[in-house]
Amino acid sequence: MKKIALLGSTGSIGTQTLQVAAEHPEHFQVEALAAGGNTGLLLEQIRQFKPAKVSVATKEAAESLKSQVPAGTKVYFGNEGLIEIAAGTDADTVVTAVTGSMGLPATLAAIDEGKNIALANKETLVTAGHLVMRRAAEKGVPILPVDSEHSAIFQCLNGEPRERLSGITLTASGGSFRNLSRAELANVTVEDALKHPNWSMGSKITIDSATMVNKGLEVIEAHWLFGLSYDEINVLLHPESIIHSFVEFEDTSIIAQLGNPDMRVPIQYALTYPDRIPLKANRLSLAEIGKLNFREMDFGRFPCLRMAYDCGRMGGTAPTVFNAANEVAVARFLRREISFLQIEETLEKVMQQHTAIADPDLDVIREADQWARRVASE
Amino acid sequence: MKKIALLGSTGSIGTQTLQVAAEHPEHFQVEALAAGGNTGLLLEQIRQFKPAKVSVATKEAAESLKSQVPAGTKVYFGNEGLIEIAAGTDADTVVTAVTGSMGLPATLAAIDEGKNIALANKETLVTAGHLVMRRAAEKGVPILPVDSEHSAIFQCLNGEPRERLSGITLTASGGSFRNLSRAELANVTVEDALKHPNWSMGSKITIDSATMVNKGLEVIEAHWLFGLSYDEINVLLHPESIIHSFVEFEDTSIIAQLGNPDMRVPIQYALTYPDRIPLKANRLSLAEIGKLNFREMDFGRFPCLRMAYDCGRMGGTAPTVFNAANEVAVARFLRREISFLQIEETLEKVMQQHTAIADPDLDVIREADQWARRVASE
Repeated sequence: MKKIALLGSTGSIGTQTLQVAAEHPEHFQVEALAAGGNTGLLLEQIRQFKPAKVSVATKEAAESLKSQVPAGTKVYFGNEGLIEIAAGTDADTVVTAVTGSMGLPATLAAIDEGKNIALANKETLVTAGHLVMRRAAEKGVPILPVDSEHSAIFQCLNGEPRERLSGITLTASGGSFRNLSRAELANVTVEDALKHPNWSMGSKITIDSATMVNKGLEVIEAHWLFGLSYDEINVLLHPESIIHSFVEFEDTSIIAQLGNPDMRVPIQYALTYPDRIPLKANRLSLAEIGKLNFREMDFGRFPCLRMAYDCGRMGGTAPTVFNAANEVAVARFLRREISFLQIEETLEKVMQQHTAIADPDLDVIREADQWARRVASE
Repeated sequence: MKKIALLGSTGSIGTQTLQVAAEHPEHFQVEALAAGGNTGLLLEQIRQFKPAKVSVATKEAAESLKSQVPAGTKVYFGNEGLIEIAAGTDADTVVTAVTGSMGLPATLAAIDEGKNIALANKETLVTAGHLVMRRAAEKGVPILPVDSEHSAIFQCLNGEPRERLSGITLTASGGSFRNLSRAELANVTVEDALKHPNWSMGSKITIDSATMVNKGLEVIEAHWLFGLSYDEINVLLHPESIIHSFVEFEDTSIIAQLGNPDMRVPIQYALTYPDRIPLKANRLSLAEIGKLNFREMDFGRFPCLRMAYDCGRMGGTAPTVFNAANEVAVARFLRREISFLQIEETLEKVMQQHTAIADPDLDVIREADQWARRVASE
């Protein structure tokens, strides 16, 4: 029986994590849940899974929730509540599925308590990979990727000699606008951007797929997760998203992980690793799909990916600033304050003004994050 | 330092095994070589690798060779010579790359001496999988596949829970005639048949690719190597032969092995497993290839594959008879005695006349083999 604490239970990854847990009550017990503003859905989840502790964003929401939860469920709120869910329960695995940089302190707290981390909050590694991986190594805590690309790489490395790895390749669908030229991008709408061809995801990550920022953050995440240099991490356009990613060894042999786009597969794998258990999901039929296509990544078409590599190589606070500026820019695009191409202009502008600080601690990271948000909002 | 005995050193797999050995003299030492009639090439190999023992097909060839080899090399011949090479040296790994059913007694002798088997002679498992795998298990000897498809499966299973495997899929290029209808097969020539689209191999296996007998033998081989039922083994048409084969787990996750068609990769992997070492080979670029195609296997178009599944399920002497009849039929086709489609007619005729004997010993296998050859020659 695996005991799970879930940060971000009402989001896309959160709800799918609970689907996996619900399908295998003999394998999984939900110890604690943290959500943001969607207390209606959280309440349903509390009634179904009967967690010992839950947390919401605000004191008001917590007060209102208290009167409605079963007797055994304690209610917390805010950043401290999130840390209580991450580190203050019997859970052996914490699924970090909150969006944005708020997941970092909670993840560090969970590592300090020796909990396995099923990592779906990529900003954690992007902003503080050096701190998180160092502390996880000290505590002997595994960081288990939930992102489909990183889960693919993780699966492909099973039983293999890591010192013989020559490189990894993250595949990229190209997002909603993969068939548009740069000129055609000038007038795209929020609605267009939210139509991802393969994956059904939250709106932030769907926009990040269209700008290729998402792949850039994944590159930085892979750098930390797998201890690889940026030269060893490649990105390949693969519109069908069937090959989720692959690794190459020094003997030229390539091991790839494939499947239909279904996040429950990597979520469940992070929870059962190194074992696997059955999942009621559509099996992949390559004969039905017929063709898989691949194209060289075009860094001119997707300048945000080039910027992400640059930030990754720069290191220090650069990825934090890139990520924070992007969060603001995407929010502004979704609020229709700026155009799609202004997302990358914002990133470029903020990065130009930033001088990276090496090996930042949490305070320096927070300051860099806030600085970037301020500049990106202007 | 791995010490190697190589059965079938002048064939396609044999020469490529020696290329691998020559590239890594710090890893590999060639202890012994066995060849058939090509004593000219064997002599070159002896001078290059200075094996302690060599063997050729006939007494005459052995006598003529003796005067030409270096002082330290002993010369043997015939079936006993082959067994001496397989079992009578310091080698820790025996590469069985002879063609046809003659590899069996030598392989069993090597297992008895506790040697690792790098298996390229698929007839060994097809005719006597029950004996070979049983004896290998008793002796704790690993059977390491050299065939690219089985090596792919073997690589994909690294570090995975075998009891969670739901099936494997062997890919098939479709061979020289994959784009011809059955009507168009009536008049194809030996020259046409020998033009394999992807792999440069010996003539017997190239014909077996065109009839799909090769894939059928691989299915039977996979049944024994991986302990799977025939329902768990699938075949998929994949003209590019880039995905060499893949495995599927109960969580629907698929792990595949990919690469350019280059037999040195699986050969070297069998010799270095579980490690890998660098290989100077062309790296696969999926962006350059652009597209991978897949089609459902058409058992009506390739009846020999259906027959192979039937023989596999029948078990006992049925696969032996299928294999022996095929060896004769392919030889007759190569001698232009029968047409291409008469290969499958021969197999059908012989199988119809055969009543399988369960759990055969070596004598019964030999008798069934000889019976099948006789009937197929008529």
